[in-house]
Amino acid sequence: MTVSVPSGAPTAIRRALLSVSDKTGLLDLARALAARNVELLSTGGTAKALREAGLTVRDVSDVTGFPEIMDGRVKTLHPKVHGGLLGRRGTDDAVMAEHGIDAIDLLVLNLYPFERVAYAPDAKFDDIVENIDIGGPAMLRAAAKNFAHVAVATDPAQYDALLAELDANDGALSAHTRFALSVAAFNRVAQYDARISDVLSSIAEPSDAGAAQRAPFGGQSNGNFVKVMDLRYGENPHQQAAFYRDLHPVPGTLATFEQLQGKELSYNNIADADSAWECVRQFDAPACVIVKHANPCGVAVGAACGDAYELAYATDPTSAFGGIIAFNCTLDAATAKAILDRQFVEVLIAPDYEPGALDYATKKANVRVLRIPHGDPGSSPGQAAGNSIDVKRVGSGLLMQTADIRAVTADELKVVTKIAPTDPQLRDLLFAWQVAKFVKSNAIVYAKDHRTIGVGAGQMSRVYSARIAGIKAGDAGLVVPGSVMASDAFFPFRDGIDAAAEAGIKAVIQPGGSMRDGEVIAAADEHGIAMVFTGVRHFRH
Amino acid sequence: MTVSVPSGAPTAIRRALLSVSDKTGLLDLARALAARNVELLSTGGTAKALREAGLTVRDVSDVTGFPEIMDGRVKTLHPKVHGGLLGRRGTDDAVMAEHGIDAIDLLVLNLYPFERVAYAPDAKFDDIVENIDIGGPAMLRAAAKNFAHVAVATDPAQYDALLAELDANDGALSAHTRFALSVAAFNRVAQYDARISDVLSSIAEPSDAGAAQRAPFGGQSNGNFVKVMDLRYGENPHQQAAFYRDLHPVPGTLATFEQLQGKELSYNNIADADSAWECVRQFDAPACVIVKHANPCGVAVGAACGDAYELAYATDPTSAFGGIIAFNCTLDAATAKAILDRQFVEVLIAPDYEPGALDYATKKANVRVLRIPHGDPGSSPGQAAGNSIDVKRVGSGLLMQTADIRAVTADELKVVTKIAPTDPQLRDLLFAWQVAKFVKSNAIVYAKDHRTIGVGAGQMSRVYSARIAGIKAGDAGLVVPGSVMASDAFFPFRDGIDAAAEAGIKAVIQPGGSMRDGEVIAAADEHGIAMVFTGVRHFRH
Repeated sequence: MTVSVPSGAPTAIRRALLSVSDKTGLLDLARALAARNVELLSTGGTAKALREAGLTVRDVSDVTGFPEIMDGRVKTLHPKVHGGLLGRRGTDDAVMAEHGIDAIDLLVLNLYPFERVAYAPDAKFDDIVENIDIGGPAMLRAAAKNFAHVAVATDPAQYDALLAELDANDGALSAHTRFALSVAAFNRVAQYDARISDVLSSIAEPSDAGAAQRAPFGGQSNGNFVKVMDLRYGENPHQQAAFYRDLHPVPGTLATFEQLQGKELSYNNIADADSAWECVRQFDAPACVIVKHANPCGVAVGAACGDAYELAYATDPTSAFGGIIAFNCTLDAATAKAILDRQFVEVLIAPDYEPGALDYATKKANVRVLRIPHGDPGSSPGQAAGNSIDVKRVGSGLLMQTADIRAVTADELKVVTKIAPTDPQLRDLLFAWQVAKFVKSNAIVYAKDHRTIGVGAGQMSRVYSARIAGIKAGDAGLVVPGSVMASDAFFPFRDGIDAAAEAGIKAVIQPGGSMRDGEVIAAADEHGIAMVFTGVRHFRH
Repeated sequence: MTVSVPSGAPTAIRRALLSVSDKTGLLDLARALAARNVELLSTGGTAKALREAGLTVRDVSDVTGFPEIMDGRVKTLHPKVHGGLLGRRGTDDAVMAEHGIDAIDLLVLNLYPFERVAYAPDAKFDDIVENIDIGGPAMLRAAAKNFAHVAVATDPAQYDALLAELDANDGALSAHTRFALSVAAFNRVAQYDARISDVLSSIAEPSDAGAAQRAPFGGQSNGNFVKVMDLRYGENPHQQAAFYRDLHPVPGTLATFEQLQGKELSYNNIADADSAWECVRQFDAPACVIVKHANPCGVAVGAACGDAYELAYATDPTSAFGGIIAFNCTLDAATAKAILDRQFVEVLIAPDYEPGALDYATKKANVRVLRIPHGDPGSSPGQAAGNSIDVKRVGSGLLMQTADIRAVTADELKVVTKIAPTDPQLRDLLFAWQVAKFVKSNAIVYAKDHRTIGVGAGQMSRVYSARIAGIKAGDAGLVVPGSVMASDAFFPFRDGIDAAAEAGIKAVIQPGGSMRDGEVIAAADEHGIAMVFTGVRHFRH
């Protein structure tokens, strides 16, 4: 669609209506506007705050000739306010004069804190409903629609730039700025109404008992995402694509990355980077994960970054070529050199880099280097609003689920065989389990001494995943006998255990839960294999 | 969160405000309300339509004492209207009496057709902006907030039930109904504001040249999805999940399914059903696709459904156990019997079923049987609004891309080898290509006579996918020599072709585009293999 957007003259700001729930920066803004001879209109608590600061303010009720009524439910919903916001300068001048409507050139408004109230753990239904702002969105939408003549600020973060432009532009705001502010206001209103729909549609109905439980998934689910960047193309060159982030990204997640050097990130880079990063940041000790085509092709934990990389690489050097390599530790110069001298790498990821590592990386200027600081995920206000929701697109539909963040600990494991795993085996079993969680199903992971020995991914039958893990270990010259095996779901038959025994596997970790668990356990006992059940499955398709 | 929702008395409907852009059903509703002694308030075009039908209507301007101004931009934004919608019966009676505010018990309103105007191919920017309704959403939100006392209808589809309840309930609407209508209104407003944000945030800025191109992806992307069903759990039992559909599902897509029998669909059922259905509906001749763990494990085209099933099944009987089986043709009784007698099947999908097929299916009452009518995808109003957008979730972010709907035709193929494929080989190459598009990358498909011989899926190196395809064909007792091979992306080295030749592959289809295409073509020529390039890649991760 080609659209024709009107260019326009700057709007001189002579009258501003201020009505804010979040009063951050309010007084500085109001003083600065007053100093520029802007008349200030206001309501309720905002007017009170301005007067207490010694500013001259005209009440909206004085403009409308109508008092605030119904505890503030109705105060600005009046033609003298909305005519002032919606009036088209040049077109509506006569009717505005006739009805005594003064043009409002700038609206500064933010909304009742619906989100904060509604997502509070102890939210009360009446408070939720009362915090649905009616007058505020009406004014925001009116001013934003009339961007050809009016400016609207919705966020204290906009105030400084707004004042700077007034100074630079003789007390006026450009058409460019007004349109940008209009879009920001409509974006904000879309977020606000999305959360109201999310929350109310998750409450089944008023209950005669006077209480209702919110459903985990509402009748309508609404998402709002902010564009981070357009991408050259999608998963394939004939697909258009862009990368968006949540309104409130959780610290430590991929969306908080900073790119330090390298070519533009591609769609597949970002998808693989997420797998690599989420996998590697599970581990406490220094770890390295190499991902290719959405699967880890090598994972290891070592005494330091460099050891972890060498072991991860050795699992599958062929696949590691052109891979995404992620560390959970500050990348040192020697390891950066080892990687970049040896192999083609698409993306490097680490929580931080030694200066020497970054210096060396500049020699391979195309390599994308991302910094993702570890974050305290508990510190994000966005989590309650659904940041941990995973989605999968199907034809004209969307599967939504809570993210698979379940971690299994040693004390949850149930030993089901006659012999129990040794302590080193137990550590390797838990390591292999953490890797299997990130391998596409059906997933089989062979591991030993905190490193992958073979990764069998993405097969329609579990037994083929096991065969692939063995084939790959053999091709890489790694020794399977003495290793442990993780399976992301239960073994439906004993054949998987028989094959593992033949390969020399000594311990197995798997969810359990098959109808034939008895047969599978008996097979392990026959072969002298130790087996533990997690009770947790990690399908990942 | 536990919420406490007020139960409440029914609201007697004595005064209704009607203001609709879509006048479907308006006159019948208004007549029925008038016959129940409901006073009708209205504005502009709605009032005119009601008067022309002989109904008695009071103008909102008469209520407010303020005329409609600015070409209708300001008509209902008045305390007498909003006080009438927001006033709390019992609490605000005195202030309403003092200011002459009459309670409005029912609001019937739908919005300016922003979506239709904005997504029209020849949309004009000024029309788009003018169709942002300001007064309408303000009234909808006011009435919806005040559901404790007021009812709000946003859609002609709600009118019949509303009238029926008035009849059954002595002219009143229950708290249950009012809350449900409120949620529907907030859902509708969330959709409306989402589209405004989508559209405006995709226009970079007012251009001095007076024209701008809309970006394919806006600065803020907003999604609205309607819940189809809660699911017992997600991809794994410890994950909560639900299935949602688009506001306007495209006919023929999975979300339009009807379940004819069987257990509840699971998260993995739906995901796999989508892969199976999208793959099978590519074909014109009768076809069958069996999917397991997100990958086709058998695909065939036959003279009829039954032939297609037999051939698809034979590709990988082990994996077909517990699979999702989809047909693009009406399923006959004999084929239904053949499937159900032979194998465990999670889901059957077809555009329709012979009565005998459904009868037989009842013997296996757990089997989920889905009907998805073929649709004319061009007939959906939703497509312009982004139904063909694919998404992938990453940590606190979302990758968005246009769906991979690219189909390759025979005349696009470029023969790059000395010998060209024969006509039968050409048909098999295109068939294998259509299958490879639905196999997780790296994907290798062996095929012959319109059926899969071996499917190599989900490997981090292409050469392993080729090995797996060969291993699986051998395990299934199928003969590879004489088959063709499809690869979803180019071969980086000649080794893939060498291995294919050794397995007896006679023709290859692949995108081409490797730095070493020359070496790869030379390998094919050495082995007497015919090879064609598509110029199109189909990664699917």
